[in-house]
Amino acid sequence: MLLRSLRAAVSATASIAAVAGVLALMATPSTARADEGMWTFDNFPIQMVNDKYGTRIDQAWLDRVRNAAVRIQGCSASFVSDQGLILTNWHCVVGCAQELSSPQQDYVKNGFLTANREEEKRCPGQTAEVLVDIVDVTDRVLGAGVGLEGAAFNAARTAATNAIQTEACAGDPKFNCQVISFYRGGRFALYKFRRYEDVRLVFAPENQAAFFGGDPDNFNFPRYALDAGFLRAYEDGRPVESPGFLRWNPNAPAEGDPVFVAGNPGSTSRLLTMSQLERLRDQQLPITLIQSSELRGRLLEYSLTGDEAKRVSFDPIFGLENGFKAQYGQHQALLDPEFLGARREAETELRARVAADPNLVQQIGDPWADLERVQATARELYLPVRQLEQAAGGGSTLYQMARAIVRASKNTTMTEAQRARLVATVGAETPISMEMEEIRLRYWLSKTREYLTVDHPDVKTLLGRESPEALADRLISGTRMGDAAFRAQAAAMTTEQMAAADPLLAFIIANDAAASAIGARWAAEVNAPTARAAEKVAQARFAVYGTNQYPDATFSLRLSYGQVAGWSYRGVTVPAFTYMGGLYERATGAEPFNAAQAFIDNESRVNKDTVFDFTSTNDIIGGNSGSPVINAAGEVIGAAFDGNIHSLGGAYGYDGELNRTVSVSTAAITEALRNIYPSPHLLEELGVE
Amino acid sequence: MLLRSLRAAVSATASIAAVAGVLALMATPSTARADEGMWTFDNFPIQMVNDKYGTRIDQAWLDRVRNAAVRIQGCSASFVSDQGLILTNWHCVVGCAQELSSPQQDYVKNGFLTANREEEKRCPGQTAEVLVDIVDVTDRVLGAGVGLEGAAFNAARTAATNAIQTEACAGDPKFNCQVISFYRGGRFALYKFRRYEDVRLVFAPENQAAFFGGDPDNFNFPRYALDAGFLRAYEDGRPVESPGFLRWNPNAPAEGDPVFVAGNPGSTSRLLTMSQLERLRDQQLPITLIQSSELRGRLLEYSLTGDEAKRVSFDPIFGLENGFKAQYGQHQALLDPEFLGARREAETELRARVAADPNLVQQIGDPWADLERVQATARELYLPVRQLEQAAGGGSTLYQMARAIVRASKNTTMTEAQRARLVATVGAETPISMEMEEIRLRYWLSKTREYLTVDHPDVKTLLGRESPEALADRLISGTRMGDAAFRAQAAAMTTEQMAAADPLLAFIIANDAAASAIGARWAAEVNAPTARAAEKVAQARFAVYGTNQYPDATFSLRLSYGQVAGWSYRGVTVPAFTYMGGLYERATGAEPFNAAQAFIDNESRVNKDTVFDFTSTNDIIGGNSGSPVINAAGEVIGAAFDGNIHSLGGAYGYDGELNRTVSVSTAAITEALRNIYPSPHLLEELGVE
Repeated sequence: MLLRSLRAAVSATASIAAVAGVLALMATPSTARADEGMWTFDNFPIQMVNDKYGTRIDQAWLDRVRNAAVRIQGCSASFVSDQGLILTNWHCVVGCAQELSSPQQDYVKNGFLTANREEEKRCPGQTAEVLVDIVDVTDRVLGAGVGLEGAAFNAARTAATNAIQTEACAGDPKFNCQVISFYRGGRFALYKFRRYEDVRLVFAPENQAAFFGGDPDNFNFPRYALDAGFLRAYEDGRPVESPGFLRWNPNAPAEGDPVFVAGNPGSTSRLLTMSQLERLRDQQLPITLIQSSELRGRLLEYSLTGDEAKRVSFDPIFGLENGFKAQYGQHQALLDPEFLGARREAETELRARVAADPNLVQQIGDPWADLERVQATARELYLPVRQLEQAAGGGSTLYQMARAIVRASKNTTMTEAQRARLVATVGAETPISMEMEEIRLRYWLSKTREYLTVDHPDVKTLLGRESPEALADRLISGTRMGDAAFRAQAAAMTTEQMAAADPLLAFIIANDAAASAIGARWAAEVNAPTARAAEKVAQARFAVYGTNQYPDATFSLRLSYGQVAGWSYRGVTVPAFTYMGGLYERATGAEPFNAAQAFIDNESRVNKDTVFDFTSTNDIIGGNSGSPVINAAGEVIGAAFDGNIHSLGGAYGYDGELNRTVSVSTAAITEALRNIYPSPHLLEELGVE
Repeated sequence: MLLRSLRAAVSATASIAAVAGVLALMATPSTARADEGMWTFDNFPIQMVNDKYGTRIDQAWLDRVRNAAVRIQGCSASFVSDQGLILTNWHCVVGCAQELSSPQQDYVKNGFLTANREEEKRCPGQTAEVLVDIVDVTDRVLGAGVGLEGAAFNAARTAATNAIQTEACAGDPKFNCQVISFYRGGRFALYKFRRYEDVRLVFAPENQAAFFGGDPDNFNFPRYALDAGFLRAYEDGRPVESPGFLRWNPNAPAEGDPVFVAGNPGSTSRLLTMSQLERLRDQQLPITLIQSSELRGRLLEYSLTGDEAKRVSFDPIFGLENGFKAQYGQHQALLDPEFLGARREAETELRARVAADPNLVQQIGDPWADLERVQATARELYLPVRQLEQAAGGGSTLYQMARAIVRASKNTTMTEAQRARLVATVGAETPISMEMEEIRLRYWLSKTREYLTVDHPDVKTLLGRESPEALADRLISGTRMGDAAFRAQAAAMTTEQMAAADPLLAFIIANDAAASAIGARWAAEVNAPTARAAEKVAQARFAVYGTNQYPDATFSLRLSYGQVAGWSYRGVTVPAFTYMGGLYERATGAEPFNAAQAFIDNESRVNKDTVFDFTSTNDIIGGNSGSPVINAAGEVIGAAFDGNIHSLGGAYGYDGELNRTVSVSTAAITEALRNIYPSPHLLEELGVE
């Protein structure tokens, strides 16, 4: 699933065998392959696309799509009615469904269906954002860092960025202003979003309908997943008006039809240098895969201990397995000599062209050598910064909230508004499984001891004379952080009061100096020089190849183009479409290949010839989940929810022969709303008779 | 711990940060570094060692040591009295202690102490072997394969090997004759062992005494582990006479003293070619580490569910974590550019010297190119052969026994004696945790589906319409294979009878054709051409560098030399000795850093200045566990039980600056037998007053 991994720590295995196949990739931007690119809306290759596909894309078409595109936490979405109705993936709303559930009512398993708007339920913490303006701020951001290094560089950049954001939003809470980096620091732009803070769940099918095939089928195709869900944006207690919505086309596309995907791809690394890729390949990815596998084993065993354990662990295990599979695929791509060889050739060519131009050498220097030196530092610092800071807590929600509270208490520059938002966030009611929290903490503590060693001074402080298991037990059984009211109180305490009030807060306070220190070193010694050098690499690319390039993904709005198409690999051709009847053929009755109950109950009513899921050549990645798939007329015809197994190498490059986007069709959603989860009010709102 | 990993499937994190440091290695044999090598007893560099260390090693000294050296399952050992008393490591006898234990009497936790010989208990399946003869059979083995390829080559080699073994032992059950490969097929030798089949447990300390610090301290130093145990070989109900034993010296050595380690290093890969190493680095090791991490997480969570779960999972988790750490260290070595660069240079030099000699080219060809082609096949076949054959069952004991029974029923060339041995083996009483069996099966089934994909025909046969969890549950809850008597009966059944009698047997029968087929392909398409090419590489090495070389480890008797020494790494000097008082300082009271109860109870009696563990420069590896550490006079002064963290790269090369053997001193064992686990009868037998 193309869910953006929101936590650096939490990370992704499938027809993995296939990943290590031939993965081509962009050599140089000037020779970019067909259908490659996650383009910004201010630099979309309109003419090229229209020439290739005979479409009539123009600025007005792009503006309409941008106004309908919605960014939600970790995912993408779109307005599909003028009353704030939002289409996204089921797997983008399942977290909300899980939070709204209880041991008595499991909306994940049973689905969340509404008969009218009164039954729509607010998703805690959920927001929806629409991009309304883009302003280039490159000169101002780059200017702030001139002549500075390390922590001073970071501070100057942050100050400039904050100032730009504050000026642009002028304190209006209906907007969110964000300075976003493009081309690895080659460009910066202010993205201004209209923000909606009351987002309610409208429709989520049963998990077995949406996630049929589970982890084994994830990132695979053929696929039979109704991975769709609806939300609705509210303001002042009323559905928002959204006249710029995408019209719902209930008909499936045909093979070869041009299709566009508008959404927020989370992160790609196509512009990283070889030394950066090699560190990822040899250090960061293997350690992440190995550690997340152990956590996976722990959570899987826990999930088998009973019905309630199974219920509360469903979404966390999904997230973990999804991230594991994505990262496993990325690692396989970097282990492929042909794939990496092409990257090396491209870098060699760029460096040679820079070296051949004395002016460029004068202006740019040798950022590749700079980045190679940074990797040596990164290799030294990675294990401690990972264990003590980036992945600290092992994904424990309470740990993360407690650390946010502790750090806010020490932060002297926080505004009242920021503090109020923190109190609101940590003080919100949210169901927390204390068993899962304890598993995560003991996993993290034991891995930290293992990777940093028993005799590391920070490990000694962390554990004292306790074992990871006993410490995790003491912290979780003793903490009051599971109580939302206490969390809100704690957010107003001094550090001393916190330490006296709660063992988990006390634990974090006792270890925070070490964690913050290594985090600061990473920022100053890795992030800062990386940003400086990456800016130079970007300048080199602009100078050599011009500006007809797309930037790496940064969870900001992009548009990709392509066509509906299957693919062939090793002599096997995979067709572009699946049909609803195929689900009944694939179902074995055993999890995760059991058909959803409503599919079974309504089998006789379902039109089995309806296109279920389909693949297209669009270039997307995690974060694009829920993105509207749009036809040439600007109508929505599906929601992207996955890539095929070959797309996992897409973090580092796009192969037009193999890389495919997987989407659920509006045809299948319409059929489901008619005959499986009858929802006449939604059909009416979507304009379907 | 240097336990040889007995199951390919079951694999091996620690001050891991340190492994990725500078690891030097043998460049060419002619420039072999000091103290490097696991030498066979028929090619030990006597003169070189005597010159360097001023010792007087001669053939008689070597023969005495060889006669005292004992090979046991997965480990090494030595006779230390003339009445069959065998010294080894606790971690080599803990499996026996676990098998002899019950929910009522936990010999692992409480130790196994005897007051006299009547209390010694037979270890199920344990044997002890002493090497009595070595005969070179190279010409006969190589001759058998001439002109053959693939399966025919394998069959001819196997037939020749079997014939040599059968002739040499002449049916005498007191001997075991084994043809062993050296130099990756450059030499073959018949090793004839005197074999003892009644081996009893004499002494095992509490696990917290032997394994203080647990997995976090494993492969680390300073160390405070009484990793020693005693066995006794019996024949005809009486202790065997062992006049060639090693005399017990209860005094610790001094820094710089020459020391020798005689034992059975399991496996090194120092003679592999670059293409072979790269496949290990990029495919086999990462997949093994990732999968074993998940199993580790599953078993760790299970172990926390109760006292009995903790008890039965102790030894399996130890084995898994030990293997994981060793393999993690190996992977780190292969990821070290300097380490691998030196290997590449050495290979380039050897290839250049071969290429410069037309006669050699004529004789040898280009086996490096051959091996590179084999790697492409190995990459294709690895996932299926791993999941369906090599690692099938996920380490389930019942699965392994059931498969042995099924395959024996189809084997038309098995002798009566072999069949009788199988019945005796599977029919022996052994405690089996059905919970652990089920965890292993569902782990294996789910990983097999994940890595081979849902739609792989063999996966479809494996799972049918069941989930991995439901299938594992059905097989384990339904099988009678937990009953030793049933196993013995099953071993006499026809395949049809088995399929009707037991669901686990039926399951294995249903899937055995696919498993055997992929195993046969691996043997014919990977093993056979690898053997052919490796034989040529060995010939090239002999031709270019002469015969003053040591072969890769093959779990056969070797002798390594060196001196008692600590080491320095990144400015930190680690002394060679720890003292018994240090244990009390390191103990925190929390597992696994809690002192053993007997250590606590007897603290006032313990001489805290006694040397506990010590390090030396000897070149050893997993399988050497329990090896006697011998001084220049031929006396035993310790038992090797571990390497330091730097030694994990020893699978691929030896660095004299950093690679250290870790041993428990006879001084500490003596002190323990006096004042912690008082055993006057053992002290008397060891000749200690």
